[in-house]
Amino acid sequence: MNLILLDPNDLTDDGHVCITDPRRLTHLLNVHRSAPGDLLTVGVQGGSMGKAMLKELTAERAYFQLETLNEPPPPPLPVHLVLALPRPRMLARTLEHVTSLGVKEITLLHTKRVEKSYWQSPELRTDKIHQHLVLGLEQARDTQLPSVTLSKGFRPFLEQQLPGLLSKRRGLVAHPGMPNACPRGISDPTLLLVGPEGGFIAWEVEQLMLAGCEGMHLGPRILRVETAVTALLSRLF
Amino acid sequence: MNLILLDPNDLTDDGHVCITDPRRLTHLLNVHRSAPGDLLTVGVQGGSMGKAMLKELTAERAYFQLETLNEPPPPPLPVHLVLALPRPRMLARTLEHVTSLGVKEITLLHTKRVEKSYWQSPELRTDKIHQHLVLGLEQARDTQLPSVTLSKGFRPFLEQQLPGLLSKRRGLVAHPGMPNACPRGISDPTLLLVGPEGGFIAWEVEQLMLAGCEGMHLGPRILRVETAVTALLSRLF
Repeated sequence: MNLILLDPNDLTDDGHVCITDPRRLTHLLNVHRSAPGDLLTVGVQGGSMGKAMLKELTAERAYFQLETLNEPPPPPLPVHLVLALPRPRMLARTLEHVTSLGVKEITLLHTKRVEKSYWQSPELRTDKIHQHLVLGLEQARDTQLPSVTLSKGFRPFLEQQLPGLLSKRRGLVAHPGMPNACPRGISDPTLLLVGPEGGFIAWEVEQLMLAGCEGMHLGPRILRVETAVTALLSRLF
Repeated sequence: MNLILLDPNDLTDDGHVCITDPRRLTHLLNVHRSAPGDLLTVGVQGGSMGKAMLKELTAERAYFQLETLNEPPPPPLPVHLVLALPRPRMLARTLEHVTSLGVKEITLLHTKRVEKSYWQSPELRTDKIHQHLVLGLEQARDTQLPSVTLSKGFRPFLEQQLPGLLSKRRGLVAHPGMPNACPRGISDPTLLLVGPEGGFIAWEVEQLMLAGCEGMHLGPRILRVETAVTALLSRLF
């Protein structure tokens, strides 16, 4: 928690911050070992970042005085990430990685090699997803929550969503065996599509190419989804 | 397990492979759901890769006939990674990430902000480290085990190991706030130094610079060690 991410509800009218949820209190008490007088980095969800001085810390509440709140959050990555739904634990970690890296638009997609049972996972509950996004923001000192969309059918995605997504973005499909290597240091608005463990099937890749995407690979090594996504984002941008 | 990594002991004199350990058997039975006749990718630890045909699979053993064994493993990254010892669970995952990405030389280093208790963790036992390296190789289809060295003092590392490590390598210290950004797509033999959560202290960075390292940063976001290391390796090479 490198930033205390404030919900508008955490702010009082007179420029104070009052936090009462056990997760953040425990972190302040046991990890930060904060004490009154400490100046901590705070940020308002969707807004600016700044510093707040801790005035009081108990097991019930943390009370801060806001000192500054005028720093913008770090710039986002110019990417919409379309990720074949990974298995639940991998999803959780991947959401944290990509949020901390600055991804703001995420679509979780069904493809042939995604196990159907993954769509029943409690990790897909709105509150669970939100929790991982918040952890990513707190890690990276960012305030802008990503949006996460679930796309439970490949063909509807292809027909109804993909054309719009590609209208102002360069589409890149990460897939082993493609002739071109992953580009480096681009700044184009990008739609990055990453397959599941086992990859997209050939038909899916074909359809994505037909829709205007370019294929690219990360080399001969087969990476876990969470490693691959971080590696792709870091190489691309 | 995208590759069955064979110990020389798994090979019989007449070109067969016999596996009896529960971990790989369970994986073959329950994840791969392999059946006799399947052609699987195998590799001999430290040697070549190829294909083997499954002849028999029971809860007690998997018996294969080796078909080919002449493919070289993928090229390693030209890097020696010096990593401030992360907390145990992060260490485990980071070892898997960097092994799958092709790192072959790893030094785990003590620095001021590494919690001393981490050095007592069972995750540092040789067998535990080996297990994570093997998982990384099996993931990436590689056969060359990385070497892992423990360096429990920063000053001895600085005085006795660093000069040798830098004699034929470009030293790069990843540290927030450095003036230069992480270089992209280099092929120099590199010594990459990554600090702990909370970073190197100023004195440590100073000493590393005096020894001939260059500082560089990954941008304004604070990343978890495992995310940062993957992002650094992917951007550098």
